[in-house]
Amino acid sequence: MGGVSIPSPADSAFLRVCRGEARTAGSPADRVPVWFMRQAGRSLPEYRALRGDGTILDAIAKPDVAAEITLQPVRRYGVDAAILYSDIVVPIAAVGFGVDVAPGTGPVTEHPFSSSADLARIRPLEPELDTPYVLETVRILVGELDVPLIGFAGAPFTVASYLVEGRPSRTYARTKALMHGEPELWHELMTRLTDLAIASLRSQVEAGAAAVQLFDSWVGDLSAADYRRFVQPHTARVFAEVGDLDVPRIHFGVHTGELLADLAGTSPDVMGVDWRVPLDIAGERIGPALAVQGNLDPALCLAPWTVVEPEVRRVLAEGARHPGGHVFNLGHGVLPETDPAILERIVEVVHAEPSPGSAGGDAS
Amino acid sequence: MGGVSIPSPADSAFLRVCRGEARTAGSPADRVPVWFMRQAGRSLPEYRALRGDGTILDAIAKPDVAAEITLQPVRRYGVDAAILYSDIVVPIAAVGFGVDVAPGTGPVTEHPFSSSADLARIRPLEPELDTPYVLETVRILVGELDVPLIGFAGAPFTVASYLVEGRPSRTYARTKALMHGEPELWHELMTRLTDLAIASLRSQVEAGAAAVQLFDSWVGDLSAADYRRFVQPHTARVFAEVGDLDVPRIHFGVHTGELLADLAGTSPDVMGVDWRVPLDIAGERIGPALAVQGNLDPALCLAPWTVVEPEVRRVLAEGARHPGGHVFNLGHGVLPETDPAILERIVEVVHAEPSPGSAGGDAS
Repeated sequence: MGGVSIPSPADSAFLRVCRGEARTAGSPADRVPVWFMRQAGRSLPEYRALRGDGTILDAIAKPDVAAEITLQPVRRYGVDAAILYSDIVVPIAAVGFGVDVAPGTGPVTEHPFSSSADLARIRPLEPELDTPYVLETVRILVGELDVPLIGFAGAPFTVASYLVEGRPSRTYARTKALMHGEPELWHELMTRLTDLAIASLRSQVEAGAAAVQLFDSWVGDLSAADYRRFVQPHTARVFAEVGDLDVPRIHFGVHTGELLADLAGTSPDVMGVDWRVPLDIAGERIGPALAVQGNLDPALCLAPWTVVEPEVRRVLAEGARHPGGHVFNLGHGVLPETDPAILERIVEVVHAEPSPGSAGGDAS
Repeated sequence: MGGVSIPSPADSAFLRVCRGEARTAGSPADRVPVWFMRQAGRSLPEYRALRGDGTILDAIAKPDVAAEITLQPVRRYGVDAAILYSDIVVPIAAVGFGVDVAPGTGPVTEHPFSSSADLARIRPLEPELDTPYVLETVRILVGELDVPLIGFAGAPFTVASYLVEGRPSRTYARTKALMHGEPELWHELMTRLTDLAIASLRSQVEAGAAAVQLFDSWVGDLSAADYRRFVQPHTARVFAEVGDLDVPRIHFGVHTGELLADLAGTSPDVMGVDWRVPLDIAGERIGPALAVQGNLDPALCLAPWTVVEPEVRRVLAEGARHPGGHVFNLGHGVLPETDPAILERIVEVVHAEPSPGSAGGDAS
């Protein structure tokens, strides 16, 4: 009926697709919802102006700053969800493991995890005591946002890889040596990081987050056999132990083409897919019960709009062929050098697309 | 019949498997051949002693040094093939593009490829004039080796990515912007790099190399649609234009699970597979006509032998299920920190394995 009104957080297109309601017969026709991983920060000039010279962990620890950074892309792009401005190492840093985020590098730790003695450095997270600023940020945002807020955590494997390697890795050689060479110690490490993820996600939802995403960014480096043996049970426990909160649970990693069925086996509600696997093919691997999220190549957003637009339409068409529903996103995070104007136009194109569930506009 | 004699280069297990003869009914029973990508250099103490402080391009330009580095792993490990000690940027550096290999970083260029004016920096390769040291190294080796020598080149996409990005990249954003934004310029760049690869491979074979490998190491970052449109025709031309030389042609890249059928469409004889896809599953994607090469995770070679051995046996079992034949290798290059003793033991295990074509030892 003319213009599209902004949905309330409790009844948004984003949440309906995540919950599988978009594919229910007789459900209201929705537009395809869209948000961008890493939409908050990096590429936005208003972010760089606000952030100043401190570290990312400094900015995250200031609720007014973190809330504003979270809001900036929602205002600018008109996306259908906000994602909390935070970092996957926040919980492990908060319990005193000794980890920082080095500008231009990523998570680093001076004393990597290497033996059972290091387990003592990973005590349980008490969110209200250890990360009160995260929960305060969530509470500020819930009062300001008219779209759902996504909370998030790092999956135990990806966090473990940073702790064991000491810095971002291209090979994960120490991590693999630990999991294979000392499997009992590996599983104890994973158990503690799983507990951290659960505690963090639960606290974010209890403070008002309407969905959660679990980032296992680097798990695609593992063979399927290693994934099933060393990672899958822990990830599955994260999703199981936040299941009673009744918010959609999104899972994501890159290079996961070979693992999609196993990732789906951890029982999230939505599966993020990188740009290497067309969404309809990804859908065949994960089955019709889960929604897909993705998967425009973020590197393509640096190309001219005439290149980007047909790729956006291709992703929409592939997503529409998946019966479980589609949340439009990139296939990985926004690159820092991305022109925000390109993301604005992507949102326009996605929102102008008729929803797959729509009966030719007769949706009153 | 007791001990296994070392095959002559012209009739080696390695070449027979590459040529598909191992799967011919009535062919002689072979052991599974094995060599390691990056076996020459890096992890060997005798290499570090010989190499000294110069750059890798300096060492490659000294035929006696390069030949010795090539021979070192053959002596130490007893592998079934040698691979020339060289680098994929040697031809493009030799025509004067202005590219170097920075220690600890990889290929770098101060002035990246960015416009049609840069095409003038890529003239055709005249191997005897531009890279005489490479050919001299090959000739020395052919006189010394009792196993086949593998020559190699960088595939046009991977070389292009270094020229366009200026350094190793995690996103290939400039490369993708160029291919999508200026497809004519992209194809002209690829055409010239294809010509370079063809000229280099032909000259290495004419000097005595008995097989060639084309490394498209980073092509797995592309979607299948991009691969088919921007890369596949060029790679196919490389293999077509060395086809008359009658040496096995091996292809390899990492993260290629989604692309294996398309890579096979470029018509190599052997498909290298990284560790993410079990060899029998890779075989289903590429079809029974090609041999597979791989695919032990090189990071696992840093684990204790009790961890490595069952993984070697798993790879052997998966390779044996592929009807096209199996060349044992790692799923990517040897990591610098690898203990050479582990690689020695891997060769022992592979060579002790009965060949899939063997009729229970009755192979006289």
